[in-house]
This record gives sequence, C-alpha cells and structure tokens, in this order.
Amino acid sequence: MNRPVESEQAGRIRGVAERLRAAGLDLLVVGPSSDFYYLTGLVGLPSERLKVLLVSSQGESAMVLPAFEASLVDHLPVRPALYPWEETQDPLVGLQRAVRDLGSARRVAVGPQLWGVFLLRIQQALSESGFVDGGPLLAELRMRKSPSELELMRTAGRIADQAYLQVIAQPVASRTEREVLGMIHDALRRGGLDRLGGGIVGAGANGASPHYKTADRRIAAGDAIVIDYGGQYRSYWCDITRTPHAGPPSDEFRRVYRIVQEAQQAAFESVRPGVTCESIDRVARDYITRHGFGEHFLHRTGHGIGLDGHEEPYLVAGNALPVEEGMTFSIEPGIYLPGRFGVRIEDIVVVTRNGADRLNSSTRDIAIVS
Amino acid sequence: MNRPVESEQAGRIRGVAERLRAAGLDLLVVGPSSDFYYLTGLVGLPSERLKVLLVSSQGESAMVLPAFEASLVDHLPVRPALYPWEETQDPLVGLQRAVRDLGSARRVAVGPQLWGVFLLRIQQALSESGFVDGGPLLAELRMRKSPSELELMRTAGRIADQAYLQVIAQPVASRTEREVLGMIHDALRRGGLDRLGGGIVGAGANGASPHYKTADRRIAAGDAIVIDYGGQYRSYWCDITRTPHAGPPSDEFRRVYRIVQEAQQAAFESVRPGVTCESIDRVARDYITRHGFGEHFLHRTGHGIGLDGHEEPYLVAGNALPVEEGMTFSIEPGIYLPGRFGVRIEDIVVVTRNGADRLNSSTRDIAIVS
Repeated sequence: MNRPVESEQAGRIRGVAERLRAAGLDLLVVGPSSDFYYLTGLVGLPSERLKVLLVSSQGESAMVLPAFEASLVDHLPVRPALYPWEETQDPLVGLQRAVRDLGSARRVAVGPQLWGVFLLRIQQALSESGFVDGGPLLAELRMRKSPSELELMRTAGRIADQAYLQVIAQPVASRTEREVLGMIHDALRRGGLDRLGGGIVGAGANGASPHYKTADRRIAAGDAIVIDYGGQYRSYWCDITRTPHAGPPSDEFRRVYRIVQEAQQAAFESVRPGVTCESIDRVARDYITRHGFGEHFLHRTGHGIGLDGHEEPYLVAGNALPVEEGMTFSIEPGIYLPGRFGVRIEDIVVVTRNGADRLNSSTRDIAIVS
Repeated sequence: MNRPVESEQAGRIRGVAERLRAAGLDLLVVGPSSDFYYLTGLVGLPSERLKVLLVSSQGESAMVLPAFEASLVDHLPVRPALYPWEETQDPLVGLQRAVRDLGSARRVAVGPQLWGVFLLRIQQALSESGFVDGGPLLAELRMRKSPSELELMRTAGRIADQAYLQVIAQPVASRTEREVLGMIHDALRRGGLDRLGGGIVGAGANGASPHYKTADRRIAAGDAIVIDYGGQYRSYWCDITRTPHAGPPSDEFRRVYRIVQEAQQAAFESVRPGVTCESIDRVARDYITRHGFGEHFLHRTGHGIGLDGHEEPYLVAGNALPVEEGMTFSIEPGIYLPGRFGVRIEDIVVVTRNGADRLNSSTRDIAIVS
C-alpha cells in the first residue's frame, strides 16, 4: 500500500507543532504574512479584518477568518477547522472558541508580523495567556529552502538579472531616478514578477545613503548610480544591487568599486556549510577595513531571503548561527561616501553541499551607462 | 510680521498630542506604516529592523531608527529627536531613553500596524506601561482628507479609470486571469502609480468569491469577470471594481448586474454630511434584499481609503459615525452566486458640502469584451 505523500504545508505544520512542544509552548498564532503563506499556501496581506491561523502543539490547526473568505480555504493542502465571522460579528468570540477547541493556550507564540492591533485584542481575549515572539521558531523552519522553493528563487533571480541587462542597455543620463526605477519595474513585470518591492535608484550623493529610495533627481554624466530592486515570483523574493556609472568613472570611483567587488567576492567564497553568519560578515568587513573604508561600510553584510525580502539568517556581527545547505541570503557589502557617492554590490546566494551558488549572474564589473 | 506656515505634518503631530491628552494617554508609538508616513512624510515598509516614531502628549516627537537611515530624516518637515542604533546594538535601549526624555509613558497608544514582534519587545522594555490601540485616535485625524490629499486621490482615480479603458479595449477571452491582471498592472504603472495592490481578476465561478485573487484560469465567452484593482499614487490609494462580460451576457446576468448597479447608485445618492456610515450600507443592502439577493451580498458596502487601501470609515451595520466633508470611501455592493458568477461595482467617493463626488468615472454599464 502506498502512503499518501504529505504536502509541504502538512510537513511544515508538523514542524511547528514539534518546535512548540520542544519550547514548552501551546499555540502559534499567525496573521496574513509570509508565515501564513508558508503554513497554508494562502496568499494574503494584513488588513483591518482579523484573520489568523492557529497551530496547536498537537499539530491541529484552526483559522479565524471573514465568513465571505471561507471558500478560499476549500482547496488548501491542509484544511484547518474554520471559525468564520460575519461582518457585524466580533472575531474574538470565534478566536476564543477556537483556542478552547484546540486545548490549552497558556503560552502563546505570536507570528512576528501580526499587527499590533490584533495582538492587543488577542491579549485581552486570552487574558490568562503569556505571549512570546514566534519568529525564531518559524525561522528555524523557513531558513532551509526546499528544492521547489529554490526553483522559484532561481527563476526570480533570473528575472532580476534580465531587468538589469535591459536597463543598462538604455540611456539613463538625463532621466530622473524615478524614471529609471519605472524602467526597472516595467522590466520586472514583463519578466514575470507578481509583486514588486519599493526599489532604490540613488544617483551621485543620493547613493551614499544606503536606504535612500528614489526621487526626481535627474541623472547626469559622472554619477554613480546605486540600483537596488527586487520583487516576488510566486511569492518568493529576488533582490539585487548593482552600481553602474553614467559616463567614464574617476579613478577614485574605480578604486572604491574594486574594493566592494573584491569584498563581495571574498565573502561569497567563504560560504560553506558550518561557517557562521558573523564570519561571512567579518570577511567582507575586514576586507573593506583593511583597504581603509571600514567606517564607510554602514550596515551588515546580508540578510536571509525567501518569502520575505528580509528574513533570517542575518549576516551580522554577533550571529553565531552556522549556515546550512539550502539557506539563502544576500551578500551586499557597500561603501558610502557622504555627499559624494555610494557603491553596493548585492547577490543572492544559496548554500550548497560544498560552498555556495549565486542566484544572480549579472556582471559585477563596472557597467558604464550613457 | 508673517507667521511661518505650519507644515501639514506639524499640524498632524499637534492633532495627535491633543487627542492623546483628551484620552488621558501619554504617548503614541507607530512603526513604518501609513500612520508613520502621515506624521513624518517618510515612506517606509515594516521590516525586521525596529524603527518607530514616538509622539508625546506634549507634542514632542522622537524616532528610534537604524543609524544608517538617520540622514533620511534630515529633510523632514518636522525633525524628531533621533535615537539611532547601530547594527550590533539593541534598539530597545534607545527606545527606553527616548521615552524617558519625552516624559511619562504610563499609558501608551500603539499604531495598529506595528508588528507584533516589536509590540512584544516594547511591552517588555516598558513593563510598567499599559498599551491600547491607537487606531481610533489616528483615524480621527486621517479620515478627513485635506485638499492636497484629495488632489492626489483624484489623480490616482483617473489612472485607475484609464487602465480600465485600456483593458476592455483589448480581447480578453482566451487569456488567463493572471494575464489580464498583468495587463491592468502594466497600464497602472504606465499611468503613473508608484505601487500596485494585489488585484482580483475572477472569471465565471471564481468571481463568486469576493476575495478570490487570480489564477491561471482561461477566460471564455460567457464569463462574467470581476476585476478589482488599485494601487498608490504618491502614497494615496485608488481602488475600483468593474464586472465586464466576455461575449453576450444572459438575461439573468443582466438582471443581477442591474440590481448591483442601481444599489450602488442609490447608496451614492444617499451620501451627504451627517448621514451615518451604517445608513449608506443599509441603502445598498435594502435595495439588493428587496430584489431577492440579500443573502448573496456577502460583505459590507464599503471602506475608507487614503494612505491605506482600507481604513476608516467603514460602511457597515453598527457603525453610527456620521460622514463628514472630505471623507473618502468606496461604495461597492456585490452579488455572488456560488458556482456561477459574481457582480461587484466599486467607486471611490468623497463627501462634499452637499453630497458626494465620485473619484472614478469608468462606465458603470455592462462592458461587453471580446
């Protein structure tokens, strides 16, 4: 007799239950978010209508949701017990009932992205319970990507690469940053992304602020242009940064660029299973510091990526987590010279058996655009 | 002597402080969100890095944020006191310091969209404080739009209208729902939206589920197609739903369509300052009920809209709030026949001195597409 194949979602819910028991927790509550999608297969953005998935330490699941959305749950791989509420009813009544039906809820783990307004209401409705951050527990499950997840992320990475090729093939000088971001977004959408991130196009001095977004500054010859963008392909993120240069770059730009490029390469080459997150950060940071720009590398070296644009593991000093096969994260050192320019080079990589693969293959050499 | 003109943001922070005092609250905490943008002018999505704006009942403001983002605050109309944290520091230390500097924090209002993980950490860091939902306080300020906000919303509405015209001018039968949503998104982006919502294209029976998203179902002649989409123009949302029909519609579709259309019109005509939200809902609901489809109108009649796609005021039974000039909300009755089809017609309207204006002018008559 063949055993039925367990769906990915069923395995994940089983994983949550195991980790709840191991941590002495009774229940996990997640709102619409990447965690919700991971456990149910249901895409959904948070909104003012309370919708939560509950998973008990026994592996039972329940969902409190607007009644008119109940049919969306019909075809899910794991069908939770439903506690629908009508537009004029209090969703918390259903939530209390669901918690009773699932058993004890003395210690409750909360999905990190659950909105505060819902957490406050749930804390009030379950006034005997204690609440802790469920993020670490969920991250343990989500950090190692399955082959099917990696396949989606590879596709997303290719779409990001194609967009970069299309953009540097066109003249950008005399366009505004916002227009260039629009060109990128069009290319990403044509490439097949379902949802786009905010994106950064920072020309000249604007590129020296790592989280600058974009504005109506017109790009001119002589500008370094930090271009950082991404989006979701079937819910999985890509994320890439390149720093092309409008017209011939100065020697100083070339020197700073090469340091960033070599730091990125050194960090990439240091990745293999068992190496810690902080050690990868250190490789990039030490390289940049040795070359005199340590104080201008203002952020950690990278972040995990998957169903969220930023997720665990984070490549940052103090994170002693050893990376494992299947983990995916960015490697994105940068140097930022206030009032002048910035350089950042970012690829997404996946840890393999013996090292790492890049999911981006766009050139990391200086691209000179017109 | 001329008084300096107060920025919109300064007036809003003053409004928060007044309402905190009136409610006996000491402090408001908001994370990156529409509320954050409303009070600072700074766009930002929530992420794993703690970033919050604090506003005291005395009208002082402070911001805890990643150090490398500090320069983004330089040009804000109201510059809060900054408590930057480095990548390897605990942001809660800065938060505790900010709270001490601002004075008492016995009773703290929380922005509704602050992520649970941050609320839990803040509750721990301010263990003597009580926390309440700051949503109502913020909604009071945000519900009535200023002339400059309305201007942006009118532009957003026009972009949504143009996209609809472009889509119904092209053949959609034999395309998939996902492809049609892609056409719409392309048109919205070309039209100038900065950020797109998820969107719904539900053909045939898929349209009978109000919050169905989209999939690879191929549209065929005979399908009603519920098309619901929106996005942000300079942070302000548009939102529109139409239900075109592929090929000649049946008499039954025409009948159901006309009921929805007339219910939408009746609700629109009932809007004027002083009328309650629930009464507008009732007008649409009674009309549909009188025509025999009350049980198939599964949701409230509308939602407020502005910096969020859904915000107060909600047009729902039980909401006795009287609408006021400058409030903006959707009017979107629908009829959903399970396994068969759905019809929904949605416009955004703004309450005027004597009635209401629509921000969408796309035809509300049946559009027959090929």
